[in-house]
Amino acid sequence: MKVVIVGGVAAGPKAASRIIRMNSDAEVTIVEKGMFLSYAGCGLPYYISGEVKEQSQLMETPAGVVRDATFFLNVKNLQVRNRTEVLEIDRSNKRVLVKARDSGSESWIEYDKLVLATGANPVIPPVPGVDKSNVFTLHGVHDAEGIKTILAEHKAKDVVIVGGGLIGVEATEALATHGCRVTVVEMLPQILNILDPEIARLVEQHMEANGVRVLTGSRVTALECRGESDDRITHVCTDKGDIQADMVILAVGVRPETTLARQSGLALGDRTGAIRVDDHMRTSDPDIYAAGDCVECVDRITGLPCYTPLGSTANKQGRVVAINICGGDEAFPGVVSSSVCKVFEYSVARTGLTERDAVSKGWDVITAMAPGPDRAHYMPQAKVLLMKIVADRKTGRVLGVQVTGPGEAAKRVDVAATAISSSLTLDDVAHLDLCYAPHYSPALDNLITAANVARNKRDGLMTGISAEQVYRKIQDGEDFFFLDVRSPQEYDQVRLPSSTLIPLGALRKRLDEIPSDREIIAYCQISLRGYEAALILKGAGFRDVKVLDGGIAMWPYEKATAQSS
Amino acid sequence: MKVVIVGGVAAGPKAASRIIRMNSDAEVTIVEKGMFLSYAGCGLPYYISGEVKEQSQLMETPAGVVRDATFFLNVKNLQVRNRTEVLEIDRSNKRVLVKARDSGSESWIEYDKLVLATGANPVIPPVPGVDKSNVFTLHGVHDAEGIKTILAEHKAKDVVIVGGGLIGVEATEALATHGCRVTVVEMLPQILNILDPEIARLVEQHMEANGVRVLTGSRVTALECRGESDDRITHVCTDKGDIQADMVILAVGVRPETTLARQSGLALGDRTGAIRVDDHMRTSDPDIYAAGDCVECVDRITGLPCYTPLGSTANKQGRVVAINICGGDEAFPGVVSSSVCKVFEYSVARTGLTERDAVSKGWDVITAMAPGPDRAHYMPQAKVLLMKIVADRKTGRVLGVQVTGPGEAAKRVDVAATAISSSLTLDDVAHLDLCYAPHYSPALDNLITAANVARNKRDGLMTGISAEQVYRKIQDGEDFFFLDVRSPQEYDQVRLPSSTLIPLGALRKRLDEIPSDREIIAYCQISLRGYEAALILKGAGFRDVKVLDGGIAMWPYEKATAQSS
Repeated sequence: MKVVIVGGVAAGPKAASRIIRMNSDAEVTIVEKGMFLSYAGCGLPYYISGEVKEQSQLMETPAGVVRDATFFLNVKNLQVRNRTEVLEIDRSNKRVLVKARDSGSESWIEYDKLVLATGANPVIPPVPGVDKSNVFTLHGVHDAEGIKTILAEHKAKDVVIVGGGLIGVEATEALATHGCRVTVVEMLPQILNILDPEIARLVEQHMEANGVRVLTGSRVTALECRGESDDRITHVCTDKGDIQADMVILAVGVRPETTLARQSGLALGDRTGAIRVDDHMRTSDPDIYAAGDCVECVDRITGLPCYTPLGSTANKQGRVVAINICGGDEAFPGVVSSSVCKVFEYSVARTGLTERDAVSKGWDVITAMAPGPDRAHYMPQAKVLLMKIVADRKTGRVLGVQVTGPGEAAKRVDVAATAISSSLTLDDVAHLDLCYAPHYSPALDNLITAANVARNKRDGLMTGISAEQVYRKIQDGEDFFFLDVRSPQEYDQVRLPSSTLIPLGALRKRLDEIPSDREIIAYCQISLRGYEAALILKGAGFRDVKVLDGGIAMWPYEKATAQSS
Repeated sequence: MKVVIVGGVAAGPKAASRIIRMNSDAEVTIVEKGMFLSYAGCGLPYYISGEVKEQSQLMETPAGVVRDATFFLNVKNLQVRNRTEVLEIDRSNKRVLVKARDSGSESWIEYDKLVLATGANPVIPPVPGVDKSNVFTLHGVHDAEGIKTILAEHKAKDVVIVGGGLIGVEATEALATHGCRVTVVEMLPQILNILDPEIARLVEQHMEANGVRVLTGSRVTALECRGESDDRITHVCTDKGDIQADMVILAVGVRPETTLARQSGLALGDRTGAIRVDDHMRTSDPDIYAAGDCVECVDRITGLPCYTPLGSTANKQGRVVAINICGGDEAFPGVVSSSVCKVFEYSVARTGLTERDAVSKGWDVITAMAPGPDRAHYMPQAKVLLMKIVADRKTGRVLGVQVTGPGEAAKRVDVAATAISSSLTLDDVAHLDLCYAPHYSPALDNLITAANVARNKRDGLMTGISAEQVYRKIQDGEDFFFLDVRSPQEYDQVRLPSSTLIPLGALRKRLDEIPSDREIIAYCQISLRGYEAALILKGAGFRDVKVLDGGIAMWPYEKATAQSS
């Protein structure tokens, strides 16, 4: 059996290795247009930041062997042709035309099965100046080397990142770690569009606290060279004004590389533009498979096609391709769009649908905010996690979870991803037997608490109100009683605007201070005491009592502090 | 509605608070025989070690308010009678007889619903000397204070921990952190009987590397005072010899406190001896509920009763009790016996069934070992995780996962616990969309790799052999070819006995050095290269080729090192 694999980074080598493992007689050839094979693209930001010391580490096996053509031949018995392009797929004769980039020589390679693992390309925004020498994407090893060179030789101080998605945020951290003054310019009203706006805003605040300037709702119109060199950008022009820049990184997203697929008439996804595959990773040609960043996925929650390029998915899909090529029967069930990134001291992780996604797809949702320590609160290692859970109001099915903060976010999102894949409800999640010890979680894990808060709202025990709604009320001068039930010490340190303090422990005795004819919104640090207060007030006959979702901990707007008040 | 709750530590206060939240008219009284309420018993080892500075921290809310009787009254509207014992339950008249420990006065309290949250008591082994002044259990705040006093005043240096279960191991770490020389005496052939022996042995090795002496298979026969004081133990006598001791901690397990339940004729579990409850946490008397360390649970995998006292479970059960008492309909689905503890630099976490459990209950299992870094291997923060997965061979259903090592074990076990609760198979787990970035996991998470290794074994791609079987072969002088396929540098540093080195990259060219008529067992550091080697050999016609499960990383016996060889 002859297998040709186009693409040598993630899905391609995974499929190739697995095919040889399952069928040692297979003749497998990997054709890769670049120099490098199996390099860890996801590690590039950490190579730039210096956490990963050597470029070669990104290309080594865990045992420290560089994955070059010799490695693939000796260890895996795989033929590798790197620096080689595939020019054409001749589907009727089952062969591909390849061209060696160094010699220029062309030849045909026959296949029984072909695998497209052509990956994705960074989107280049259509503005003048993107071709200048200090403008980069963050896609390949050469990008990372270019950025490191500019940092070392030109002492770049002012860096503008165009695009506030995952890659933009990772690039921001890498360059800020290097001592650069970083400005992120994002066209949308928020960074990290994979999050709901109020969660994204918490991340923005953390970036700002680390000296990063975040300009949302800003469109780049041109990159201009106003210095001595006409090949070096000095200014990024936006619709909100110009920003000085010693270097620009374009991180406005990636697009699936589908040139070959399109030319050879394979079906592409209508909405995603990525290669369409069935659950066995077969394209519209049964002898051609595809995997990784070039294919369309299925969202396991909605059943709809989606495009979520990720190294983890590419590896899983590569394995599925191999099994099916070798006569097995393995379906790839799709994704729930889990992702995570590090932003200074915060982790940002999410899975499933955001509230916005879910509502736009017609769901009637219930949401809850659950801020709190990520382990027993008395342990000195405890760190805050800020969590949002989204569920279907009717069935209670968990649809999505978003977490940020300095605590262990990825752990909770991985549990949530597993729960969502298994169609668990809020009730199921609340009863998960997660492992507990003070060093690892609170007695009730943050995710369980989030599910319980959502259940309390569903069952009418708690009426929440979002920070955004409260903020608008304040802005509009609406009349409501904003009740802070923390301690005087906490209130002195930081408080929300227009609030009145009555500590929870004194509330039952001071009910006469609460107006009975106004809307009452109670809050505390994480809204547990706020919840208790609302229950006391409801028990005492107050009718219109709400709790601020997420408390001060998740308030994404200005607060009054001891200094400012 | 009048509710009386017996027990004020975990399940009791949780049930009480929730009842008042759901029904502000309820009259709820907590009767607690001790002084302290809602204290964090699980935190005691960290109070002893000094990580938690003040006793009061274990009794405070996250906002720093001590949970005393005033707190419960003012904030929760709960009546608390601490230092008060329940002497009798009069089921026919629905009332309990209580006695204040200070005044000695007795009185009856009527109830509509009664909740037993009586907890558990430490088992005291029936040997002479357990009543001496430097012998402790690790159960209540007074134990921790006693231990701290001995440490401070008597400069205890030699401490013997009787029992190598979770509490014994946590106590060991706390006292070793204090600079004590700790010896653990365990009757069974291994510590941490919640693990399979080879995983427990890895933890033992880590404890030994931290200066702890671990004596398994050793029975304590007496605690003796051979010093000046006849109230202070100086020696722990075992069937293997005597051990000097300045302090002894008894950690041989806990037993459910069921005196009241028994006296009042409530049903107890046959095998567990704990209070029997239905899935609504009702005892055999429909007006009496029970929750926490005093009740029997259901194992969600086997459907059998089990006894797994844990603070996390107690909190969940307390909530279920409250909902049902207030007219709701909530079932507690049972547990999958997840637990975690910290042992020096290692975490130890597990969920579901061990191989031994599963086999003893009649399952035909497939197991896999998956050692590896807990994040992208090129990240400097990557730490090793040593994982074992157990699944049903027929259906592929995941039955249990055990993880230890310095990496993030709890995260993987929480995902596994969720998967097991959802009856996921190895195939399902292999396709979980867990969140990936180099800082958080390898592109294929450790749990996914473990599932894939098990699938490879199931599908006949890999034949594993356990370290124990190989060790026995070596001991018995059996004839087999033990093939190390790492690099010469790795082989020089550490190797397994009787092994021959042929690095993987050279294997295809050196096949003539491999005997074709002998059993071949291949290994490397984590058995990924060992697996590749086995595939190469099988492809080359070798018939009897196995791979050492878990490689050197999970070899629990002696190794030859550069120093020793």
